[in-house]
Formats: sequence, structure tokens, C-alpha cells
Amino acid sequence: MISALQEAFNQSTYQLPGHGRRTVQVLKDAFEKVDGQLDSDIYGTGKVIEDFQDKMAAFLGKEKAVFFPSGTMAQQIALRIWCDEKGLATVAYHPLSHLEIHEEDGLKELHKIKSVLLADETRVIELEDVLSMEDPVACLLLELPQREIGGQLPSYETLVAISRYCRKNGIKLHLDGARLLEVLPYYEKTASEVSELFDSVYLSFYKGIGGIAGAILAGEEKFIGKSKIWKRRYGGDLISLYPYIISADHYFEMKSDKMPEYYENAKDLAGFYNSCHHVSTLPDVPVSNMFHVHFPHPKEEIEPVLTEVICETGVGIINHLKSTDEYSCYFEVSIGDRYEEVPKEAVKKAFLQLDEMMKNKFPS
Amino acid sequence: MISALQEAFNQSTYQLPGHGRRTVQVLKDAFEKVDGQLDSDIYGTGKVIEDFQDKMAAFLGKEKAVFFPSGTMAQQIALRIWCDEKGLATVAYHPLSHLEIHEEDGLKELHKIKSVLLADETRVIELEDVLSMEDPVACLLLELPQREIGGQLPSYETLVAISRYCRKNGIKLHLDGARLLEVLPYYEKTASEVSELFDSVYLSFYKGIGGIAGAILAGEEKFIGKSKIWKRRYGGDLISLYPYIISADHYFEMKSDKMPEYYENAKDLAGFYNSCHHVSTLPDVPVSNMFHVHFPHPKEEIEPVLTEVICETGVGIINHLKSTDEYSCYFEVSIGDRYEEVPKEAVKKAFLQLDEMMKNKFPS
Repeated sequence: MISALQEAFNQSTYQLPGHGRRTVQVLKDAFEKVDGQLDSDIYGTGKVIEDFQDKMAAFLGKEKAVFFPSGTMAQQIALRIWCDEKGLATVAYHPLSHLEIHEEDGLKELHKIKSVLLADETRVIELEDVLSMEDPVACLLLELPQREIGGQLPSYETLVAISRYCRKNGIKLHLDGARLLEVLPYYEKTASEVSELFDSVYLSFYKGIGGIAGAILAGEEKFIGKSKIWKRRYGGDLISLYPYIISADHYFEMKSDKMPEYYENAKDLAGFYNSCHHVSTLPDVPVSNMFHVHFPHPKEEIEPVLTEVICETGVGIINHLKSTDEYSCYFEVSIGDRYEEVPKEAVKKAFLQLDEMMKNKFPS
Repeated sequence: MISALQEAFNQSTYQLPGHGRRTVQVLKDAFEKVDGQLDSDIYGTGKVIEDFQDKMAAFLGKEKAVFFPSGTMAQQIALRIWCDEKGLATVAYHPLSHLEIHEEDGLKELHKIKSVLLADETRVIELEDVLSMEDPVACLLLELPQREIGGQLPSYETLVAISRYCRKNGIKLHLDGARLLEVLPYYEKTASEVSELFDSVYLSFYKGIGGIAGAILAGEEKFIGKSKIWKRRYGGDLISLYPYIISADHYFEMKSDKMPEYYENAKDLAGFYNSCHHVSTLPDVPVSNMFHVHFPHPKEEIEPVLTEVICETGVGIINHLKSTDEYSCYFEVSIGDRYEEVPKEAVKKAFLQLDEMMKNKFPS
């Protein structure tokens, strides 16, 4: 069942978030210029997969990289390897980490690995959280940006300090870099400069990069060798991963240089939201291409407002809305190719309308 | 490094085994007539995945089915569910089962499930093997056909008897039906008639069906519900599986009716092999589209013979050869679309040549 909001978004003339609909055309475009005679990868071997792995290892400044069907698989495996190496089945991460809330407890169910939760649901992990850990851990996972709190980031100096502490104390540092490229413009660093602080790095291809699916895990040769064994154990060593690899490469080439533009546009769009009555973004000023939009009112009251603004202005602000609790709601925005295509006047008009409707409905 | 045999095969005019090279064209053909505006599946939901799952559930005569990126993942999960249900972490299967030899011990490493090995490396599991099991098991896995011994099969009556025994004794029966379609012509049964004997069924789309990758797991609704949770835990619940689903459906439609032809051609080709000096097939008469070809001589002595036959006749007999031990070697043959396209005269000529060369080289 499609919501009225989703329906209005689907019918709108312009859409503000994302790259576009996830259709088969995404695959067709990626394969249009690929020679049909190119051989498939075969169980992790062959030019198509090896070349891309080498390219990503170089991009991330790591010895080796391996392509995985998913980040869920890649990250559980990374943590398992670090736990085995240390002989300690405990890792630390944020309470809203993907592993903690989106994987049906795969890490615990498949590996019996315990998690120590650092920081809390309002903020990112800081150096103090790491220094004050009581239990020993084999590995600390940092997610940049911390998606479930609007894509917040620690300062680069904090990253450096955490990295230094972990190295000194024999704690492996893993980067959940699902959206690594998206944070580089804020940090003003290259991917390999950030990766250098970490022992292992995961990168996703269907977020900012806009591919179909798939992930890269990168690290030292020994680590990557072990990850390939686990990839086979998981059933992730498919006979052919090229549908994801070729599309990942295609969209990596197309989008990776556009991250500064997405970042600027995210700040621009967040400004529009924050100019509206009873609307605020988290973070207040985005540090990547993403942010969350919060309303201090129940979802049932906000959904009709958003739907009406979209229908009246033709500007697809958003297609979904989630309850934070009984009294408030929010949605996530990721900026991609579409925002740039929307006339500025249309955006302004839509947010003036949103502001006015919010004032009328919630005059207090 | 490509072998001389592979090189000769690649250069040959005709090729006897398989459907053709695994190239990007396999994907292009499958997507050629697919509307680019078709929406992607999203994390296991959406028309493209749900329709195909429903179609496969109906085909296999099961309540529900779920699409997996790989059979390795699907089967480990099936066994884990049956073990959890019984509270017993032991399963039984053949010593040359995929789980035992091709998955880096995933079942043991990820689930701590022990395996009881039935029958031996020369034959399939018979009723007597099941009756004489000493340890209690939660689940028995049967692979039809038993690939690593040339694709042998138990009789259909044996299947019925094993199924009856398992149901009576609270042992779940799982079908490794990676090549299920390929055995239906020999059994003269439908897929659902065979599946009916099993509690859970796995089917692959890149063997006889010739797709890119992917698998279906089918069973009762409750079982499939649980398998979806495990699919997420494994990182198999990709945001988009449509590259595999659409191609699986495309080639399923194209190839499933051709299995009787592949089976007849396998018997035909095995006859040619068996007419040659010091060459024999296992089984002697194939019971599916596949068989193994054995030579009582070391790989190093047979490889030049095969290479020369291919170069002289233009008939690509085979592209690989494996050592059985120090004194003998073998290769696997799977019949697909290509065999039909080779002129019968060319086949005859190639095998006359092979026979002659084998006699000259091994006169005893």
C-alpha cells in the first residue's frame, strides 16, 4: 500500500532528494557501453573483479580490496577476523550502528561476538568514549557519517586521536565507510588519507555513488586473504558478481567527483528547511550530502502538510516520514543528482508554502 | 595462466559442453526486452522479487519461496532452521556434498553444526545408509544428482522410502536441488512431485538453467519467514537482487523445457566417450545432463591428447582436466545448448580421432 505522501512525490514535477528512481534503467545505463564479449568473473577471479578490486585498493590506499555483495557481510567478516586475531569476541560501536539495528543481530547469532555500545543516540563517538571503555575490545567500528543521527561526524582531529589511541592499545579500528566519499568534502581529505587512520575500510556503492548494490572491503593482504575465506563461508563468493561490479565502477566514475556539489546542496537545502516554522534539521548544518528533518508534531499531522505542499507546488520534497515517538516525526534526506535540476524558484516557493502551512496549522 | 587445453578449446570451431561462454552478453540478452522503468526490488520487497518467488513456490509445489544470492547461503540457513527447530545441531549428508567440500566449513564455522557423512565417495545415499545412522540428526540433505560422482541418482522408489522414513522419525529432509530440473526427465516426474518428498528445497539458476547467479529456497510459510531473517543476518538481503532475478526468470523460461533434450544428448555424448580406448564415463549411462569422464592415466599424459584432438578436429571436447590421483584424471561434462549445434559428423570424427590417439599412446 502506497502512502498519499509517496503518491504525491511520485506525481511531482521535481524531486529534491536522491539520484532518481531505482529502476532497471540504472543497470541498463551502466551496461550500455560494455562489450557483451567481456568475460564474467568466476568465483572471485577474473579481470572484471580483480581490476576493480585493485582500483579500489589504490583509491583507499590499502594493500588489497575484495568486492562483496553487501556491506552487512563485509563488516561482520571484518569484525570476526579482528576478534579471531586477538582471541577476544568483543567489539565496540555506536548504539545506532548498522550492525546493532539493521542486521537481525547477525554478528551475535553467527559469530557470538558481543558489542560494547559507545556514546549515545544523540551524538557521535568521541575520544573520551574510547578512553573510558571498561571492557577490552578487539576492534572499534566508526561509522562516518553516523547515519541514524542525521549523518553527524566527529572532527578530523578526533579521528586522528582515536586512531592513535587504538594503535597504541592494540585495538583494531574499522571504518564503516558506507558513505565515505560523501564526507570527504567536509574533511577536505582524500579517501586514502581518511582510510590511513583505519585498519580495515568498508565502502558501499549504492548510497551516494548510486550503483545497484555491492561493497568493497579493504585492508592489508593477510586480512583480505582471510576475508575471502569468510566470503565463501557466507555464500558471498558468487560465481558472477559482475552485475554489481560493473555498475559500481560506472557510477563511481560518474559520481565520485560530484560529492562536493552534493555537500553544498545539502547545506543549501537544510537552510530552506530551517527557515520554516517548527522544522529543524540534524545536524543544523550538514557535514555530508545527508541530514535528517525533524518536526515536533506527530507523523499523522505532518504527513498531510507535506503531501499538500508537494501537490500544490509540484516539488517532491520527500516521499517518506517516520515517527520518532508519539509526539514527533522525521525523515532522512540524501542529496544526489536531482537537486541540481530543480529550478531555485520552485524550491523557494515550496518552502515558503511549507512555512506558511506550518504556521497556520501550528500557530503556537 | 591459461592452459593449452583451455586455449585449444577457446579456439575451437564447435564446443560440446555447456550453454556457451559466461559473458556480459548473458545479462544483456536477459535484459534486452525488460522495460527500463521497472522498479528495483528493495530489500526483499517489490513486484520483481515477489512475483518470481510466488512463481517458483508454485513450480515447486511449496507454500512460499525466497530468492537468495547463492545456494551456499540458502542451504546453510535451511539446515540451521531445522537444527534450531529440533534443538539438535547435527545434520546428515554425503561426504562429497557442496557443504562438506566447497564452503570452507561455513556450516561448522558459522553455526557449530556437526555433519554425519552417509554413504561414501563412490555411490549415492541409499535407504540402508539412513536406516543405519547411529547419531540422531535434525535434518538429512540429499543432493540430486550427486554432482561430485558424475551426477548419480538414487531410484525414485528410494527417495520415496527415505522421505517416508524421515517423516516417521522426525528428521527433516532437505533437497539440494541445484540441478533439480536436470533430473526430472530421468525420474519422469514434475518438480513439485519430487519436491513433495522434501521439507525444504533449494534450486540454482546458473547450472542447467544458465542464468547469472542466484537461488530459490522453498518450503512452508513459517520456514521461509525464518529464512528471510537469516538472509538478512548473512547480508544476503541486498537492496537490489533484480540483476539475478530477472536473468533467472529469463533463462528459466528458455531452458526448463529443454532438459529432456540435454538428458538425451548427455547419453549420446557419453556413448561416444565410452567407445574410446581407456576412456569411461561415470555414470556409464547418464541420468541427467551431466557425467564425468575418467582416464586411467595421469593428467599430464591425457592433456596433450585432448588438446591435439581439439586442434586437429576443431571440436572443443572439454576445457579442463583434473587429477583424480597420481595415476588417473577426469573432467566433468554438463550438456547445454551447444551440443545440439555441433554437426554429428564432426562429433564422430573427433571421437574416432580420440580413440585412435588413445590406442597409439596406451597400446596395452
